[in-house]
Amino acid sequence: MSLLVVGTVAFDEIETPLGKTGRILGGAATYVALAASHLIKDIRISAVVGGDFPQQYMDIFSARNLNTSGIQVVPGEKSFYWSGRYHSNMNQRDTLATELNVLADFNPVLPAAYRDSKYLMLGNLTPSIQKKVIEQMDHRPKLICMDTMNFWMDTAWDDLLSVVSMVDVLAVNEEEARQLSGEYSLVRAAKKIQTMGPEYIIVKRGEYGALLFYGDRKFYAPAMPLEEVIDPTGAGDSFAGGFMGYLTKTDDISYESMKNGLIYGAALASFSVEKFGTKRLMEISAQDIQDRLVEFVKLVSFSV
Amino acid sequence: MSLLVVGTVAFDEIETPLGKTGRILGGAATYVALAASHLIKDIRISAVVGGDFPQQYMDIFSARNLNTSGIQVVPGEKSFYWSGRYHSNMNQRDTLATELNVLADFNPVLPAAYRDSKYLMLGNLTPSIQKKVIEQMDHRPKLICMDTMNFWMDTAWDDLLSVVSMVDVLAVNEEEARQLSGEYSLVRAAKKIQTMGPEYIIVKRGEYGALLFYGDRKFYAPAMPLEEVIDPTGAGDSFAGGFMGYLTKTDDISYESMKNGLIYGAALASFSVEKFGTKRLMEISAQDIQDRLVEFVKLVSFSV
Repeated sequence: MSLLVVGTVAFDEIETPLGKTGRILGGAATYVALAASHLIKDIRISAVVGGDFPQQYMDIFSARNLNTSGIQVVPGEKSFYWSGRYHSNMNQRDTLATELNVLADFNPVLPAAYRDSKYLMLGNLTPSIQKKVIEQMDHRPKLICMDTMNFWMDTAWDDLLSVVSMVDVLAVNEEEARQLSGEYSLVRAAKKIQTMGPEYIIVKRGEYGALLFYGDRKFYAPAMPLEEVIDPTGAGDSFAGGFMGYLTKTDDISYESMKNGLIYGAALASFSVEKFGTKRLMEISAQDIQDRLVEFVKLVSFSV
Repeated sequence: MSLLVVGTVAFDEIETPLGKTGRILGGAATYVALAASHLIKDIRISAVVGGDFPQQYMDIFSARNLNTSGIQVVPGEKSFYWSGRYHSNMNQRDTLATELNVLADFNPVLPAAYRDSKYLMLGNLTPSIQKKVIEQMDHRPKLICMDTMNFWMDTAWDDLLSVVSMVDVLAVNEEEARQLSGEYSLVRAAKKIQTMGPEYIIVKRGEYGALLFYGDRKFYAPAMPLEEVIDPTGAGDSFAGGFMGYLTKTDDISYESMKNGLIYGAALASFSVEKFGTKRLMEISAQDIQDRLVEFVKLVSFSV
């Protein structure tokens, strides 16, 4: 099955108490696609970069069999750039710089070969852009998962609600779920958001894992407690990539399958944070993932 | 099997955005014992109260078959009193008042009938008092679980380490685990604390559940996402009560049993927060607990 990933492909520059990167490969679509590439072959990226985006990064995508024909290159312009500094607890970060550059005028035009994608992951972007992508599909994808952030709740509320009403799965963090719903309790927040469109709500809780809500049912995917977290950047997107990769691979969008998808997501996210940037996602093997999944089974197994 | 619970029996006065209590029954030993009383019959409480402690509270204990012969009553003195206000997120609270009263001179003297207790729960108290209790036992209990807090790390470090070295299970929250070990990573913190004595480390994470560390093994007991949290007071102690109640009931202190114990703990804690004070703990039935356990199984079941 095919997965279309829309989102940022960018430069990141990251500082943590453990070190500093220079400009490295980053972006939501990058993490989603790299994570998913461990599970499926047919992944298409829709994004925009500037003329400064190095060929070596495109080669990284190609090496992982990612379809980059939908990555628009704008010569003479600069790629999206984000720089941040993590505090010693790795849970809080300060954004040092956000330069939209080419992203400011991003108008995704899907290549014809993308328009039949069966699964669609909408990375965090301007809601109106997310909507434009949905509207370009030949058929409504079998499943659409959407990520967003509080910034769009503050600045593009109506557009945001419009896209939210079109998707099957909404992935947000706790604060975003609360802001979107006006409910503090996550159980109530999820119920409220379900009335806005998506049947499935994923609440991402960082180092505490993620919750999945579907009707009255709920599922808790833990995060793996790690010896050391080197760089949390992209963890949420790696999570989404593992999740959507699993659904696309199995072509099963039942609640049972979604639960497994969350565990795959948690596994990919747990690798992602073990090294700076996308490094770990590029080196792990199928066996590494299998071993990590076994660890997840052990992490929550009991028999009351 | 028998469980000895040492800790505070007290008055609480609680304010949340949802309401205010007057002076109500509180204290760590109260919550531990009430939670455990749903699982086992032979529970002994060691505590101290003042002459102001009402008979009706003693009657509550008796109604739940708790042995109160080790609750020392100091006539003319006041019981321990704590008052706090929760913020709207229920995760942060301000202590409005702490009046030690009789607790300042608490010198636990175990009744002869208590000294053969097979299981021992040391609620959060001055470390030297916790130690005195251990020393009064006829035989070393089969399992000792200890709760503590950062206050003792700041004020009674050596005494604290001395008791820590004597127990099997240490239950602390994330910040306490970090302060005690000097390690930020909980995995590393647990390893360090294991070298201080306890083989098992429980890291309590509030609404995010709890982690159990044993050697290189780890287990994640989730917290149940609830429609509404009315009063978080006593959640950690109810958790400890469910945990110790399960171990005492099964008389099985294997790692497998501990994992189940954590789920029982999480279940009792999830009830405790549903009403103010100890109200919910006093009204739930065996069937309620059974139903909640089934919810926990569903909450983390998957099949990758």
